[in-house]
Amino acid sequence: MAEQNARPTVAIVGATGAVGTVMIDIINNRPSVPWGEIRLIASPRSAGKKITVRGEERTVVALAPEAFDGVDIALFDVPDEVSAQWAPVAAERGAIAVDNSGAFRLDPDVPLVVPEVNAAKVHERPKGIIANPNCTTLSMMAALGALHREFGLRELVVASYQAASGAGQEGVDRLYAEVSAVAGKQVGVRGGDVAEALSAAGLPEETPFKAPLAMNVVPWAGSRKDDGWTSEELKVRNESRKILGIPDLKVSATCVRVPVLTTHSLAVHATFEREVTVDQAHKVFGSQPSIVLQDDPDNGVFPTPAAVVGGDPTYVGRVRQALDFPNTLDFFVCGDNLRKGAALNTYEIAETLAAGGE
Amino acid sequence: MAEQNARPTVAIVGATGAVGTVMIDIINNRPSVPWGEIRLIASPRSAGKKITVRGEERTVVALAPEAFDGVDIALFDVPDEVSAQWAPVAAERGAIAVDNSGAFRLDPDVPLVVPEVNAAKVHERPKGIIANPNCTTLSMMAALGALHREFGLRELVVASYQAASGAGQEGVDRLYAEVSAVAGKQVGVRGGDVAEALSAAGLPEETPFKAPLAMNVVPWAGSRKDDGWTSEELKVRNESRKILGIPDLKVSATCVRVPVLTTHSLAVHATFEREVTVDQAHKVFGSQPSIVLQDDPDNGVFPTPAAVVGGDPTYVGRVRQALDFPNTLDFFVCGDNLRKGAALNTYEIAETLAAGGE
Repeated sequence: MAEQNARPTVAIVGATGAVGTVMIDIINNRPSVPWGEIRLIASPRSAGKKITVRGEERTVVALAPEAFDGVDIALFDVPDEVSAQWAPVAAERGAIAVDNSGAFRLDPDVPLVVPEVNAAKVHERPKGIIANPNCTTLSMMAALGALHREFGLRELVVASYQAASGAGQEGVDRLYAEVSAVAGKQVGVRGGDVAEALSAAGLPEETPFKAPLAMNVVPWAGSRKDDGWTSEELKVRNESRKILGIPDLKVSATCVRVPVLTTHSLAVHATFEREVTVDQAHKVFGSQPSIVLQDDPDNGVFPTPAAVVGGDPTYVGRVRQALDFPNTLDFFVCGDNLRKGAALNTYEIAETLAAGGE
Repeated sequence: MAEQNARPTVAIVGATGAVGTVMIDIINNRPSVPWGEIRLIASPRSAGKKITVRGEERTVVALAPEAFDGVDIALFDVPDEVSAQWAPVAAERGAIAVDNSGAFRLDPDVPLVVPEVNAAKVHERPKGIIANPNCTTLSMMAALGALHREFGLRELVVASYQAASGAGQEGVDRLYAEVSAVAGKQVGVRGGDVAEALSAAGLPEETPFKAPLAMNVVPWAGSRKDDGWTSEELKVRNESRKILGIPDLKVSATCVRVPVLTTHSLAVHATFEREVTVDQAHKVFGSQPSIVLQDDPDNGVFPTPAAVVGGDPTYVGRVRQALDFPNTLDFFVCGDNLRKGAALNTYEIAETLAAGGE
């Protein structure tokens, strides 16, 4: 911080967007905040808009170099290319940029931080930039970080069940429209009839999901990378390695979009250096303030995305010791991709910085 | 067969049920059938019902010991307890019982058959009973069997995306009702509102899925077994081992229900004795008549359940060589759980028998 004793100034860049809105909601619902000024920044188009934050009406200012003057911490909730251009500008003006885009995550001079896992990394920021992980990776990271500390993670095979809002507001709107188009119709019984129902309802063929999502699942998320992998699958691998500090962690991920609005889920098969029993895993999960263990299937207790959406924690259940793989657990984990998966973790990085880091 | 030169008599037990109906549809759409008589058998409640099979109206007869007189092959599409009681009766009367229930699958004196994988096993049937695998296992078995023959399967980590119709007509009706209840509503954004929408629409809280399925995924299928595993997950393990003839195959499965009507999907992580490239896997899949390869994601080509439902083949896509696991492929597979997953495979066992088995 520029002045050690003053309350720091925080800026939210992209304050009027989907994640920025969740960020303001988080700030409004915090029992207390460490900030002096809270500055709202957005594109010139949104400048002048009034938003009430913690009871005080604030005016959105336009993204410009001067907007960062006096800012201690700038939280970026904007597309990759906007972050790539503007996070260095904020850093140059003396702010620490905490960036929720993909622009800097694998930059060796930018730490990738999940406060429960590697909070101390906030101090190693030669570029003045700290990155927030991808939402799919983040949804399981608190759970994996806790297990890794105790048992030493070696291998990870994951399959995702990713929500429509991972594709932004456009994804949310599309899923609502698709569900309305198929409701009351006998679709999904023979090939092509979901697609026909969407077409009959006048929905454009172009979709953020590459295929119908209502009454369907789509084994594709993100963009095409080499050898048949998607960007999303490689992020799960590369970001997990960096956050956990295990450069040779073995990872295979298959990312699949499901007709869920918000909250990503993952089926995780994790192999450790040492034996882990279900009881030991339950104890580790139970001791983490940011993890809620929901693992009593006899009484119908396991996490589902529709039940936990809107919550801050990572929800873990279905913990089983693999029958045929030594030192291996299978479990199911849910995390709100707009909260812990995006705005909340970014905000928690800012809180860590305001508290002096640790 | 009792008489080697006569055309055999086939009976469909459970002819008026969900799978029995698909069975009759399959028989009606076969270019030719090897059967002399086709006998329809159901509970006394359905006896007397008329059903047209291959252009000829037939009357459903009541399930009774005499109903199996003169039957060469009896196809059972009935609940476990009905099969457990009646398949031995059919066998005693001289029929070969091909059973689609879970009653006999792991009986060491009953072969578990997928014709593409282990057709010759139809001859090893000391009890006169042949079992048809569980639909989730079946959805990936043609693909795994083909790869196993070439490369030697050793390990399997799978996560499922299972359709509502796996829970029968009750599951189908429930998903339709739930989708209609949430359509047009802003649900799935905060915890509890999917459940509230279902309750507001008057849907009973009791559901075959243990949790809301619309706008949700549910990490539970089947019944509770030891150590947190479900019956469905253990079937995937134990049936895969038996069908593929690999008693020490390492398997971990996580079974998850998704809001899809029909067609199960699986994310498969399979490790072999030898190296397998994507090209080699494509060649193996491409050479199987019962597999359709859909693997050109640049052009939006990958299988999804809503697009392939109603088809007989196994659909495979997203084939990738694991980056960190030697001799390992990741891929995504879809199979219609009511066709190949149930009626079709049972019927193909009967065809194999009629052709003399091989």
